[in-house]
Amino acid sequence: MTLDFTSDHAAPAHPAVLAAVAEANRGRTPSYGADPWTREAERRLRQVFGPTASYVPVFNGTGANVLALSAMTRRWESVLCAEDAHVHTDETAAPERAGLKLVLAPSPAGRIRPGGLAPHLAPGNRHRAQVSVLSLTQSTELGTCYDVADLRALCAEAHDLGLAVHLDGARLANAAATLGVSWAELTTAVGVDVVSLGSSKNGGLLGDGLVVLDPGTVPGIEFLQKAVGQLPAKTRFVSAQLLALLEDDLWHRNAEHANRQASRLAAGLGALPDVGLPVPTEANAVFVDLAAPVADRLTQDVALTTWRASGERRLLRLMTAWDTDPADVDRVVALVAAALGAGRPKRADQVCSSPTAPAVPRP
Amino acid sequence: MTLDFTSDHAAPAHPAVLAAVAEANRGRTPSYGADPWTREAERRLRQVFGPTASYVPVFNGTGANVLALSAMTRRWESVLCAEDAHVHTDETAAPERAGLKLVLAPSPAGRIRPGGLAPHLAPGNRHRAQVSVLSLTQSTELGTCYDVADLRALCAEAHDLGLAVHLDGARLANAAATLGVSWAELTTAVGVDVVSLGSSKNGGLLGDGLVVLDPGTVPGIEFLQKAVGQLPAKTRFVSAQLLALLEDDLWHRNAEHANRQASRLAAGLGALPDVGLPVPTEANAVFVDLAAPVADRLTQDVALTTWRASGERRLLRLMTAWDTDPADVDRVVALVAAALGAGRPKRADQVCSSPTAPAVPRP
Amino acid sequence: MTLDFTSDHAAPAHPAVLAAVAEANRGRTPSYGADPWTREAERRLRQVFGPTASYVPVFNGTGANVLALSAMTRRWESVLCAEDAHVHTDETAAPERAGLKLVLAPSPAGRIRPGGLAPHLAPGNRHRAQVSVLSLTQSTELGTCYDVADLRALCAEAHDLGLAVHLDGARLANAAATLGVSWAELTTAVGVDVVSLGSSKNGGLLGDGLVVLDPGTVPGIEFLQKAVGQLPAKTRFVSAQLLALLEDDLWHRNAEHANRQASRLAAGLGALPDVGLPVPTEANAVFVDLAAPVADRLTQDVALTTWRASGERRLLRLMTAWDTDPADVDRVVALVAAALGAGRPKRADQVCSSPTAPAVPRP
Amino acid sequence: MTLDFTSDHAAPAHPAVLAAVAEANRGRTPSYGADPWTREAERRLRQVFGPTASYVPVFNGTGANVLALSAMTRRWESVLCAEDAHVHTDETAAPERAGLKLVLAPSPAGRIRPGGLAPHLAPGNRHRAQVSVLSLTQSTELGTCYDVADLRALCAEAHDLGLAVHLDGARLANAAATLGVSWAELTTAVGVDVVSLGSSKNGGLLGDGLVVLDPGTVPGIEFLQKAVGQLPAKTRFVSAQLLALLEDDLWHRNAEHANRQASRLAAGLGALPDVGLPVPTEANAVFVDLAAPVADRLTQDVALTTWRASGERRLLRLMTAWDTDPADVDRVVALVAAALGAGRPKRADQVCSSPTAPAVPRP
Repeated sequence: MTLDFTSDHAAPAHPAVLAAVAEANRGRTPSYGADPWTREAERRLRQVFGPTASYVPVFNGTGANVLALSAMTRRWESVLCAEDAHVHTDETAAPERAGLKLVLAPSPAGRIRPGGLAPHLAPGNRHRAQVSVLSLTQSTELGTCYDVADLRALCAEAHDLGLAVHLDGARLANAAATLGVSWAELTTAVGVDVVSLGSSKNGGLLGDGLVVLDPGTVPGIEFLQKAVGQLPAKTRFVSAQLLALLEDDLWHRNAEHANRQASRLAAGLGALPDVGLPVPTEANAVFVDLAAPVADRLTQDVALTTWRASGERRLLRLMTAWDTDPADVDRVVALVAAALGAGRPKRADQVCSSPTAPAVPRP
Repeated sequence: MTLDFTSDHAAPAHPAVLAAVAEANRGRTPSYGADPWTREAERRLRQVFGPTASYVPVFNGTGANVLALSAMTRRWESVLCAEDAHVHTDETAAPERAGLKLVLAPSPAGRIRPGGLAPHLAPGNRHRAQVSVLSLTQSTELGTCYDVADLRALCAEAHDLGLAVHLDGARLANAAATLGVSWAELTTAVGVDVVSLGSSKNGGLLGDGLVVLDPGTVPGIEFLQKAVGQLPAKTRFVSAQLLALLEDDLWHRNAEHANRQASRLAAGLGALPDVGLPVPTEANAVFVDLAAPVADRLTQDVALTTWRASGERRLLRLMTAWDTDPADVDRVVALVAAALGAGRPKRADQVCSSPTAPAVPRP
Repeated sequence: MTLDFTSDHAAPAHPAVLAAVAEANRGRTPSYGADPWTREAERRLRQVFGPTASYVPVFNGTGANVLALSAMTRRWESVLCAEDAHVHTDETAAPERAGLKLVLAPSPAGRIRPGGLAPHLAPGNRHRAQVSVLSLTQSTELGTCYDVADLRALCAEAHDLGLAVHLDGARLANAAATLGVSWAELTTAVGVDVVSLGSSKNGGLLGDGLVVLDPGTVPGIEFLQKAVGQLPAKTRFVSAQLLALLEDDLWHRNAEHANRQASRLAAGLGALPDVGLPVPTEANAVFVDLAAPVADRLTQDVALTTWRASGERRLLRLMTAWDTDPADVDRVVALVAAALGAGRPKRADQVCSSPTAPAVPRP
Repeated sequence: MTLDFTSDHAAPAHPAVLAAVAEANRGRTPSYGADPWTREAERRLRQVFGPTASYVPVFNGTGANVLALSAMTRRWESVLCAEDAHVHTDETAAPERAGLKLVLAPSPAGRIRPGGLAPHLAPGNRHRAQVSVLSLTQSTELGTCYDVADLRALCAEAHDLGLAVHLDGARLANAAATLGVSWAELTTAVGVDVVSLGSSKNGGLLGDGLVVLDPGTVPGIEFLQKAVGQLPAKTRFVSAQLLALLEDDLWHRNAEHANRQASRLAAGLGALPDVGLPVPTEANAVFVDLAAPVADRLTQDVALTTWRASGERRLLRLMTAWDTDPADVDRVVALVAAALGAGRPKRADQVCSSPTAPAVPRP
């Protein structure tokens, strides 16, 4: 099956990333973060995120999230996140195995709305979860983005309530590209304290990272990193990848390409009759609602994720990546059109792109 | 400092490993273990370990150990390991954070002796740890090896007592090279159930693996793997490294080279006066006991680990690797000789090489 | 403040319970469950619950729940419960500290509806929580009850999906009294596997219990009991209380008294104008919705719980117990009437008692 | 079997304790620690332990220890304790299930010696357990006591190393009675930070307590108490017991009686031939070494614990309690004498009572 829209993880590493790893494979170097590549990556991240940033190379996104949230909470503290958050829905209870309770906030279209955090807290009530961290996902699991104003409002609200803010930025680059802002504008400038910064979904090979913006929020992280199994020995190879992605804004270019293909796909599908797009396409995921027979036909030719199956309809997720071929996008649209037995465009006002679109609850 | 004997982790990846990763970086492939490289690695491991073997690609040794031990124990069960075991001394309490108690057995020269497991168990006593797994390390943290007979005896004893056997084989290749046997002879043939198989200390880049020989001992491992943060998305890149190390016995050649340099170092140091070698050098670690001023002088020129400092003596650990230059080994010997102000060889019978040498307790 | 409707925990022990403890305080007896009182309690519980029942004396309800759920799940498994479940809302993340993820099902009026469990599961999807237990609360946190038909349907549905069923019966007696059925009819007969059986909220002193109906669902519970800190040494004193409550159906009489006072309170309040009863009063809790000034006035004279404060309204919870004086109930009604400045009854059809009443989400 | 020397847990509650519980069973009172009995118990404990003391009523000793150690450590920190410590040997891995690693110090005759803590620590080494608490047991699991000077030295040494000090005082009263000092002299005055204060082994019914001497060492304890299942609802009944034991030094009298019977037993047994007393009898436990046939004979008539069975010898533990009848003690001595077939006293210098007696390692 040559049409693969399952995941941005299915893509290879960008050639520049591989070249950087090869370049780092010279001679002996200290392990566990004491190598020059890791130091240089931290120096570069400080240019990007600001002078307080520190860098923790880790293996993967789940590990980054569990490490960050473990370091940000004391033994009796809990985390507030979206009902759709990856840490809640897609990490096989990894946070809970680490002793972390996730308190869930409603998240229409994947986003927690500002202004409603307090009712989820019960500070000082010894019978209830003591929330000390707000964890946001950017871009969200539904392929939407928090805009800068909402992020600023949520961080301010969280801080006012005594919470630190974690950002699961497995796809931060996609959000930055969509919104046309820098990473710092999405994090440091609005008050985020710790970022899980994904590489592997955006052209990386193996490895992700944490960027700590407020070091006071993660005491003991150097010990917890080992204790949760996220301390690579040969850190140079993780950091070299990050450096390659930072070089000449490769990360931005990769993300922008992926986003563009998602938009192209959404536009193409949205122009077809009886095709729903229940959430706006704001990053590199397209959620498309099809009649079951159409969906079944499509899944014979395209690798993708069936997000929800209910009655006569199917909700499918198609992910684009840095390597997605526009011709493949067009092929998917053509396949749907063919399956529908019709190519007539529907009127533009039927294309959903509203930020108030209904959430896509996963079953 | 060009003389680096700190760790086998300080070495680069072998060029063949890097080439294999580059070769795997072609197009899209399914993630999370469904790629052809992972299937091929499992096929090859079955040739090596036997037809029951299955393969779990993971990120690192601590992760491999925590995953294996978590999968091998039920919620109320514990693990028996050596006082010197890496899981006990060098993993920052990672097993305990995962809820695992380690019950410690004495381990002279790093090895648990057969015949003495039962007194550490208390089956059915509800007040005491319920041990269900014996975890052995091969080669040991003190650079010694279990021979095949001892392994067979320990596995039989464990199984008779109802325990499964885990082998922490971060340096299994070094032990196999020393003993002149295959991996299967050290594991499948003697009754080991699950192996943490290290790549990164033997020429790998990023990533290690588990080899499960008795699948009945690790129910739920596919879920636990994600829950403990050890499920790589882009498994092809972990598996490609393993394939390169398996190709033409590269793993064996790497380990043999490292071992040979350790032997050379031990022989050179052992021939000097007032130099102690308190444990036999059976893999790629050399433990050397020096007068404090000699040790202090040496550490100015050589990167190494001070294992223990007590009174007037220092116990140093020097690790060799697949890339260690014999000329560097000779330089270290010469530096010690110079620091001693003497190059006179001591009599051969003062060189310790007995398998009954005293243990090297870490402070 | 003599009017105390905060909790059934505020009540003393029933005199018969105290007498039984005194009676058990004779001479030496084996500890940790090997005493005659514990054996007798188990014998009596088998008469009540059926011949497969076994009994585990524990300290408290949170402990009972964490022990049951820990024993019923393997390391990688999770628990499905109501959004309003006590284990989720009122146990300070105790389950999660024990490594248990709670997957939440909607629970209008505190009850999970039969027929909708499957969408919360994802069996075999290694990225998602693997639910193996359904935990129900009877009576619920909102003072409602599952009827026998719903319990039977939920247990059958759970078993069909491969889940075991845990019942948090901290107030099982109240539900049994309301529904006019035996404990067995609410548990053994409908397919419940493990029951947390509360004593302390129904006339007990210190201690609660687990009743295991399907022993195959709780392997290792004798070890986990100690490991989670819920193994009393002097079990005779826990079991003696249970025996007293079982004697002559004291438990039933206590619960029936408490329920009757709650009904009396609900009827009295429901007859007043501008007083809402958003959930039916089916056990010993009354939830009453009042205008803020009325509620504020009431809380000066009555100890109770403010469940939710939003805008101009307050939702208050008043709990009755085995010792609640009907005269105190009438005093509360009179105080509300006085605060309202009115005693006019509203029409009966404004009194909510429908089982389809809206849920009372806690903020 | 009327001769019961298994455990101090086998004894009933002291009548005064039962009377106090009955006295507390009057009317309604706030739950979860807000009752007058709990406040009064804290007031009294401040008189005993000093003005900084605070009191946390809990259910049992394992719970007290896990709660204290959880509160005293951050997520990445570990605990140093004796190889013989109850938390290590007799709590079924409860600390590890709570995520706590126990680092073990040698403990000849049950006691950690002052002056040797530092080698067990590795502050700042991210690969090794980060010890932040020293946990001592008083009296020890081998029935010996730390004297005041050793306690002071150990606390000073711990504090100098940055560790807080926890005292497992399940039998603190026995140690205080032996040493002829107050509780404050054994705790507050020497620098202990948190005490697990046992009631149930010294005449209590159900329940134990924590006494926090340095509140800065246990942040969040009010939340952790609930999270680890150790928050009784009806705290008045736990606190009333403590008040009874504090009244007129009942606790002291109970402990002194128990200790006296242990001394009587040790003296009687020590005067017999071929009877070993490998550890000094300094509290309410007697360890006696007998030939296997003699031990086997004795266990037919006396309930006790076989601590170790090796070859031809048996090491038995006999515990006395507040209710032990001196006539029963004499009966045990007579039974041993009869089993030996001899009543001849051995010479006094064969009776071991030296504080440097060898440890009694449990198998």
